[in-house]
Amino acid sequence: MTTSFTRLDDLHTEVDHRLRAFVDRQRPLVGGPELRPLLDALDDFLSGGKRLRPGFCYWGWRAGGGGDDPAIVTAAASLELLQASALIHDDVMDASDLRRGRPSVHRRFQALHEESGWQGSAAQFGEGAAVLLGSLLLVWSGEMWRTSGMPPEALAAAEPVHDLMRTELMCGQYLDLLEQAHGGGTFDSALRVALHKSGKYSVEQPLRLGLLLAVRREEPWIDRVCVGYGQRVGIAFQLRDDVLGVFGDPAETGKPAGDDLREGKRTMLIARTLSAASPGQADQVRRLLGDPALDGEGVARLREIIEETGALAASEEMIKRYLDDALTALERAPITAEAREALAGLAVAATSRRS
Amino acid sequence: MTTSFTRLDDLHTEVDHRLRAFVDRQRPLVGGPELRPLLDALDDFLSGGKRLRPGFCYWGWRAGGGGDDPAIVTAAASLELLQASALIHDDVMDASDLRRGRPSVHRRFQALHEESGWQGSAAQFGEGAAVLLGSLLLVWSGEMWRTSGMPPEALAAAEPVHDLMRTELMCGQYLDLLEQAHGGGTFDSALRVALHKSGKYSVEQPLRLGLLLAVRREEPWIDRVCVGYGQRVGIAFQLRDDVLGVFGDPAETGKPAGDDLREGKRTMLIARTLSAASPGQADQVRRLLGDPALDGEGVARLREIIEETGALAASEEMIKRYLDDALTALERAPITAEAREALAGLAVAATSRRS
Repeated sequence: MTTSFTRLDDLHTEVDHRLRAFVDRQRPLVGGPELRPLLDALDDFLSGGKRLRPGFCYWGWRAGGGGDDPAIVTAAASLELLQASALIHDDVMDASDLRRGRPSVHRRFQALHEESGWQGSAAQFGEGAAVLLGSLLLVWSGEMWRTSGMPPEALAAAEPVHDLMRTELMCGQYLDLLEQAHGGGTFDSALRVALHKSGKYSVEQPLRLGLLLAVRREEPWIDRVCVGYGQRVGIAFQLRDDVLGVFGDPAETGKPAGDDLREGKRTMLIARTLSAASPGQADQVRRLLGDPALDGEGVARLREIIEETGALAASEEMIKRYLDDALTALERAPITAEAREALAGLAVAATSRRS
Repeated sequence: MTTSFTRLDDLHTEVDHRLRAFVDRQRPLVGGPELRPLLDALDDFLSGGKRLRPGFCYWGWRAGGGGDDPAIVTAAASLELLQASALIHDDVMDASDLRRGRPSVHRRFQALHEESGWQGSAAQFGEGAAVLLGSLLLVWSGEMWRTSGMPPEALAAAEPVHDLMRTELMCGQYLDLLEQAHGGGTFDSALRVALHKSGKYSVEQPLRLGLLLAVRREEPWIDRVCVGYGQRVGIAFQLRDDVLGVFGDPAETGKPAGDDLREGKRTMLIARTLSAASPGQADQVRRLLGDPALDGEGVARLREIIEETGALAASEEMIKRYLDDALTALERAPITAEAREALAGLAVAATSRRS
């Protein structure tokens, strides 16, 4: 490998190659024809995704002084398997029908059951298969990380964060379930959930992993860039997610229009809407939000209220401010101009994305 | 640590201490009061269990020449977290209400939701929480294994099997889902599922892990004892499981009488029953098996048929034969008399258990 993946597209392509190579290596273990649907579902699932987490990990490594090394791309790519695991389980928990414009994994296995005319509940079969595939990918993600070819000392330095990140992810997702069950709290509680569930593990920790793999010890400047840049980009990333969940174009998000509204997601955007809403608006939000039968008119009305209360503008403003502050923090980091430029590009890509 | 845990009860107690110590170390990460129910559920869950897998791992280590080392007990204990993860997910997939005489984890969180008067579906909340706790324990199991204090060379020697075991477990559980969906196949297909789902990861692979940690390389005799003894004990273990699922005493199994019958589990016992049944008996089995409303009378009728067809006696006979053959293989293994005696005791405990 001689390229340094300055272009994100090149890194994306290489990450895809590594994922394919790892899954091909595992294929014989998942041998029988009956197991084939698990691998088919995985192949399809992995064909989507923006590979942002591997990007932050790879550029953390480069920012930490790591050179061109095939092992880092494999290690970074393993984060996509973790993400796939989380999304597959997430779709079961949210009972989501679609992911990236295709049936979610549990729906896919439900359809397999129905088409095959098997016995028992097709829905239960689908959920069971999705839980198992998600768990398999959680295991594989760790295996791919550890067998990436990174030297043992590098892995040992990053291991506590690798473990912590996954604990944070599971706990953050539980906090998210609670937030939905509580019917939503303040903006601050939604922010805390967003940070744990997604922000940390989408940006800050992948970046920190790459830095620790390269530097092989904790350093004050590593923590400063991970918090000052990484955590802010993570929050802006999640704020963008909230906006896309309400205003995103289905052709780009692969989810139905206003899907988060129908699911009743208690996001930072919704918390801000409710805190700024008139009593009449708040009543409407509470009545429409989370209605599984919410139609286009209902989605349009909720969108109006989110705009009228200024919550949408405030979210866009916050995304911009978090991004600006993140880029300022990045300026002060003792890293190469090349790494700085790439991380700036990743921050923009993560916060201005349309899907 | 000066004892060598020749008594299984002493090992059980020490495994419990290590589990407690590990969970206490993680407790600050799962800090907020909202996360407390996750740890409470885990504490309760870990208070049960027979610690068989840690036993096979510990005695694999001793059989491989490993000495008294606190690290092996910690490494072995980590297998209980993997088992807890699998059982919690299993109960979600089977929609089981009880585990060890108490509400299953998803029912426990469903009850928390109901008692708290939260919004949304309590059942969905319960399942989501159980999926997350199961995933958290899957991560923690790996973390406890790797941070057990075992030397890196020992861990490196066992790592491929550690990874393989977990892939086998997930794939085996998927095969089990399929077996239920297909409505059951032959005895051989049920045996294959049992071996993958439970046999390998309950006995053979924990034993192999302990051996590899101690010996630090593959050896023909290791494979011989793992297959000749371990695989046979694993199959007998699962055959005992099948019998307990139908004839077990609820006071000991912690599951309702005939629970496997109500769930319609396609076990080796049922495959044998169907293959030996008269047309009339087979009709009755197909009609009653898997009926969620199956009452005491239905359970009694199915038990009669399982006995009349000779399937029960055949299962007991097979358990005895597998156990005898396993003990013969053990005799030939080049291990100390102490390890041989302990492994013989574990084999008997695993196959003559009442819960």
